[in-house]
This record gives sequence, structure tokens and C-alpha cells, in this order.
Amino acid sequence: MANDCRAELLAVGTEILLGQIHNAHAQFISQELAKHGLYVYHHGAVGDNEARIVNAFATAAQRSNVVIATGGLGPTGDDLTKEALARFLQRNLVMSDEALAEIVQYFARRQRPMPEQNRKQALCIEGGEWLPNPNGTAPGQYVFDRGVHFFLLPGPPLEMRPMLRDDVIPRLVRLFGGERKLVSRILHFCGIGESDVDEQIVDLTSGDNPTVAPYAGEGEMLLRITATADTEEAARKLIEPVEAEIRSRFQPFIYGEGDDSLPSVVIERLRRQGRTLGVAESCTGGMLAEMLTDIPGSSQAFVGGVVAYANQVKEYLLGVSSKTLAECGAVSEETAKAMAEGVRRALATDFGVGITGIAGPGGGTQEKPVGLVYVAVADARQTRVYRLQLRGSRAQIRLRSCKQACWRLLQLMDEYL
Amino acid sequence: MANDCRAELLAVGTEILLGQIHNAHAQFISQELAKHGLYVYHHGAVGDNEARIVNAFATAAQRSNVVIATGGLGPTGDDLTKEALARFLQRNLVMSDEALAEIVQYFARRQRPMPEQNRKQALCIEGGEWLPNPNGTAPGQYVFDRGVHFFLLPGPPLEMRPMLRDDVIPRLVRLFGGERKLVSRILHFCGIGESDVDEQIVDLTSGDNPTVAPYAGEGEMLLRITATADTEEAARKLIEPVEAEIRSRFQPFIYGEGDDSLPSVVIERLRRQGRTLGVAESCTGGMLAEMLTDIPGSSQAFVGGVVAYANQVKEYLLGVSSKTLAECGAVSEETAKAMAEGVRRALATDFGVGITGIAGPGGGTQEKPVGLVYVAVADARQTRVYRLQLRGSRAQIRLRSCKQACWRLLQLMDEYL
Repeated sequence: MANDCRAELLAVGTEILLGQIHNAHAQFISQELAKHGLYVYHHGAVGDNEARIVNAFATAAQRSNVVIATGGLGPTGDDLTKEALARFLQRNLVMSDEALAEIVQYFARRQRPMPEQNRKQALCIEGGEWLPNPNGTAPGQYVFDRGVHFFLLPGPPLEMRPMLRDDVIPRLVRLFGGERKLVSRILHFCGIGESDVDEQIVDLTSGDNPTVAPYAGEGEMLLRITATADTEEAARKLIEPVEAEIRSRFQPFIYGEGDDSLPSVVIERLRRQGRTLGVAESCTGGMLAEMLTDIPGSSQAFVGGVVAYANQVKEYLLGVSSKTLAECGAVSEETAKAMAEGVRRALATDFGVGITGIAGPGGGTQEKPVGLVYVAVADARQTRVYRLQLRGSRAQIRLRSCKQACWRLLQLMDEYL
Repeated sequence: MANDCRAELLAVGTEILLGQIHNAHAQFISQELAKHGLYVYHHGAVGDNEARIVNAFATAAQRSNVVIATGGLGPTGDDLTKEALARFLQRNLVMSDEALAEIVQYFARRQRPMPEQNRKQALCIEGGEWLPNPNGTAPGQYVFDRGVHFFLLPGPPLEMRPMLRDDVIPRLVRLFGGERKLVSRILHFCGIGESDVDEQIVDLTSGDNPTVAPYAGEGEMLLRITATADTEEAARKLIEPVEAEIRSRFQPFIYGEGDDSLPSVVIERLRRQGRTLGVAESCTGGMLAEMLTDIPGSSQAFVGGVVAYANQVKEYLLGVSSKTLAECGAVSEETAKAMAEGVRRALATDFGVGITGIAGPGGGTQEKPVGLVYVAVADARQTRVYRLQLRGSRAQIRLRSCKQACWRLLQLMDEYL
């Protein structure tokens, strides 16, 4: 064990148990703790029921030395987390004048009167500390008892996250100082199947430190290499040779690393090359443009796009000939080619992309089934068209089409290097 | 308590505790059980560590009478869920010839040899039953012991979900037969703030059956009315008067119900009216077109769109005059209006939408700060432009802009009724 931290996360809220919302806090807090080498061994969720929350704290206290609970700190009668912990620890709740002053000020800044029920939020567990919440009315709570560090954090993410980052994690790092560092390295793959990658890394996935784990994505996949060591640098040194080996085996299929995504790499490479892009989309209906413009600063490289859903748009705005549409059909190699070339011409860009296909669930025929998609990428010298037969839902087919378009565009751009 | 089902969900996998993936199963299974009035009282997650999985089963068995565990049924040494439950129950694992035959056939259908390590997946908990898995190699497990119904399901969603639906839920319904039915009714709101709704439904949210709960969304919100009764019809009867009251208070802001979304309602209403739509997007970069074309069958109403990211596209394809762009700027009431009218003209549609703004994080000025967005909706008779000042991240500003555009378009379309 790298350090003595044995953390447990407890989400409180009946809406989680009904499946009405998903417990996003568990993933977020786990990630943040992992970054600091702090181990999480249990996640839990329980409803707004005081007896069950008390029991959940009791169970957690038996097996964990850090318990981070989220939710149930609001002003209403359904908010019971603080009350439950006080009951479990047999402590009183006492009014904190300082916490109350913060809540009063919170309302004053918004020029709203403080409802009487919000006073309850200034009650603190006796002998504990309240944690300031600049973004809401629910102060957090910290109390150490029975060898366990209990943290109670508010449920809204915009309140919970700053408190976690600014208060909880610094405390945990102080408490479990000298912890080992955990470093992860992510490599992104496209154009190769997950099983093909799996088969070729069997010798690398058996290791203990670093570990190598594949994760399947939609139309792409990633490998995560994770090492632990006393320092970040030492952890990175453990990762290096494994990463080099993986890169040597899969170089043409590795398009990025870390937080890279296919659209972010497309935009970044266009910007570096000083080149521009326009896209013409039929079945993906604007999704590729949306993905590319989701990248801040994309306007330097992405000029625009045409969502040519109806044939008339393919003709009017992209100059696809009515002959091509009539003879080959809207979903055809020829139409994809004419779309890529047409948008490149219409928007005067260096590169053009055309996507046309059948995303389903309706519209498929024996000859042109759902999932048939043509992707074309064009530059001044050439146009390449790829025929895809994709599986999955409408959303999956659309997303995979966009990713294939990015991937094929990157290959075309590589030729300029 | 409506019935005796006290279910607990346990997800097994270290990747969940590291925050590398989120525990999507918890939400999905909770929703499915809730639909059948089966109560879930605890969620948990634990890593790939046999001792801790054993302890998690022990804890669950003390407080729950149904335990559904997901993950850890694969062929590798890290897959320990079955082994842990066998250890906790002090039962043996025995090879099932039938389960093995299913696995062999699974590989045979794919014309691949069965790796030796997959034999392990045919081991079953003695005295239990294995559950067929048509979509993978991991059979599920069912065993009843100590008054607890234990179900072990495979981790991949495409394997877990059919097994849950076809096997687990029918068993639970038989076991906890005569259970009370839980019915939920969802109303979708736009154009009104969550706090405004909250304040006006205080008298309705204090009830026990039905309950009324607001949920904030991005740029919209919903109210969920939930009732339990012996029959679905009786539950619906409880909901009716509350729904009617809410509708009478908020009618203009309620745009849909159930699975409706803003784009689905836009498409549905266009189809019903036999009218068509084209959209011109700058800062949203194709997101509105993507949302609309995400709806199956949208091609009957949605003709196409122009992603006019660069000014030249606004001029060339939409006919926005260079004078307007130079004098008023790309982010202006005049440009939004010209975009909506331009796309309507260029694509020959009944309605046109124009969106231009500053999604950030860069590009803002004192005069035109990040979050300033103009939305224009046009038909043959008029064009309306709305100035929005939105808060949040780039993604939030873009999403909220698209939703506002849908909402304003619906208002314009209402005038044809």
C-alpha cells in the first residue's frame, strides 16, 4: 500500500437510487484523489433516509479512514447528512455564528432576503470545523472521530468541486503526506480494432507497475499506462520505455495523447500548417462541424460547413450535379466526392470533407443498408473516398462517421509533413 | 414500504474507483427496477480485490435482500466477483457443462478458437443457476442464500442489459409479486428560471404521494411527478390533478413531456404543420443542426444548414452584406437577422434560424463580452431577434444558445396554430 489513505465516497440522495441522476461526484472525486496518490476503496450511495445514512457512516467507519459524503446539506427537511453524521458520532449540532454570517452575506451579495429555513445550514457538528462555500449557502463540514476523517460536501457540482480542491485535498495531502505519486499516460488510437490492439499487447498488460489498460471508445480506443512511484518523475521514468514500445508497435494508429481528441488534433495540425478546412455533411447533420468548433480557437482553421440534408442543398450550395444525385444516389462514392470538392470550392478552403450515408434507424435498403457511409477528403491535388459499413445506433453511426472523417483527414494532412 | 424488495447494487472494478470510468450500471439498473416498483436502497462500488469484494457482499447481505453485482466475470485473473461470492457463501465453484457448451458455441459462431482461459467463465456457484449470455462469453449467476437473492452480471453494458431485462427483472417481479407500481410523469420547461418555478410550487413539493421534484438542466428544466399505487392506473390517477395544476400555472413555459426534447418537439411540430426549416449558425458551429438531425425522421422537416464560422461564409452562402458585417459586426442583431433570412432564402424553407455570438473562452470585449449571443427566427412574415447574455463554459453557452433558438422557434410556430 502506497500510503495509509483508505478513502470512501458516499453520495446521499434518493434521486440517485431511483436512477434519476447519475452519481457524477464519485468519478470526479476519485479522479482528483488519484491525481494525488490518495486511494479510494469504496463508493456508495444511499437515499435521503436518516437511519440508512447513519448506518452507511457506521459501515464506512469500520473499513475506511477517510469518508467524503456529498449531498444532503441543503436547507430542507430532506437534507439529513449532517444530522445523520452527528447522530452516528453522538455529537450535537451547534449554531456557528461565523457560518451564519457567511450565509447571510451570500444572500446579501445577491440582494435577496435570507429565508428562515437557511439558518439550519449554519448548524455545525460540535467539535468539527465548517468549510466555507463561496458558491452557495451550504457550508461543508469536517470532523475527525474514531480514527476517521469525515468530510461533508454540498451536492451541487459547482459548490462541491471548489471545496474539494481548495480544502479537502490539501488537508488529505497534509494528513497522508509523503504519499506515492500516481502518473497516467494516455495514448489515443484510431483506425485499428480494439481486439487487434489487445492481441498485440498481451506481454505488456501483465505488468504490475506500470499497468497498461485498453479502453474502448466510440470508433476509437485508448491505452492508459499508469505507474506509481515516490515522485512524479520516477513514475514517468517507469512509463517511458513501455510507451516507447507501444508507439513502435502502433505508430500509424496513434493519433494523440492525454487530453487530445480527433477534432482537437485536426484543428491543431491545421493551425500549425496554416491551412483551412470546410466540411459538407449529410447524414452526420452538423456533428462534424460541431465537434471541430467545440475546440476553442478553431475559427483560425475551420472556415465553415454546409449541412446538406436535403438533395437540393447538395445541389444549390455544394454544386453536386443533379445527374450524379439521380444516377448514383445521394449516398454514393460520387456524391461524397462532389460534396468534399464542392465545399472546398464554395468556402475557398485548403481541405474539404464530405460525408453522406444512412444513419438509420429507417432509410436502409438491401443495396444500401443502414450504416453505409461514404467519407471523402479533398485537397488541391486529390480526393480520397472511403466506404464504411458501420454498426450501432443512429448516434453511434453518426459519431463514428465523424471520427473516421477526422482520421482520414489527418492521414491526408500527414503527406504535407 | 410498498413491497419487500430491498435491492443493493454493487459494481466491481478498480477502474471505477480510480475514476477512469463512471459507474453507469448503477443508474441504468436503478431506473429499470424503479419502473417495476422495485426499491433500491444502496449503491456500492469496490475494486478488483477479493477480500474487499467478499466484505462488500457481507455488508450487503446484512441490509439488503437482493444484491445485483456487475463486472468481474471475465476470463482473467483480475475477474474475481464469482470467486468472492463463492467464498462468502462458503460454496464451491463447479464446472457447468451446459455453460461451457454455450461459451464454446459463442466462439464457434464467430469462427474463432476458444482460448483456454475462457473455460473459467463456465465455473458456477454450487447450488446456484447460471444465466445465459447471448452477447458475450460471461454467463451470469443467480444464487439464493441467507435470505438474499444474489445476481452476478457481466460488466459490458451490451451483455448486462439484456440479462437484466430478460432474466433478473422477471425473477424479481415474480419474487416480489404484487408490488406497488411506481409511475413518473415528466414535464419539460424552457424560458423560465428554476428558482421562479421552485417558488411557485412550494405548496406542491411537500406532498408524499405524488412527489414533485424539479431538476435543473442546461438552459431548461424539468419537473418529475412520481406516484406509487397498487396499479399503474391508480398511480396515474394520483398524478393527474397535480399535473393539471402545474400546467395551469406554467402553461406557456411547458414545451413537452416524457422523452420530449426541444429539438424533438421542433421536428415533430414542423412535420405536423408540413413546414420546413433551415439554420445558419456561427458560434454554435453546427450544434443546432446536429441536435435536430439527431431526431430520426428529421429529414422530412429539416432541409439543411450553413455553419458560417468565418465572415466570408456569411457573405457567400447567406448573403449577409459586407456593409452589415463591417458596420454592425459579426455578432450583432443585424447579422443574426440577415443570417436567419439568408438561410431561409438560400434553402427555400418556411422557417430560418440565425445564431451568432461569442462562446468564449477568448474573443470577448467589454462591449461584446463572452456569452453575448443573438438568436433570430424568421418566417415569411417576420423576423424576430433575441439578445441573450449567457453564463457558463463554451459548451454551456453553445448548448443554451441552441435551446433558446428552438424555444423561440416554437413560439413563432405557435402563431400558426
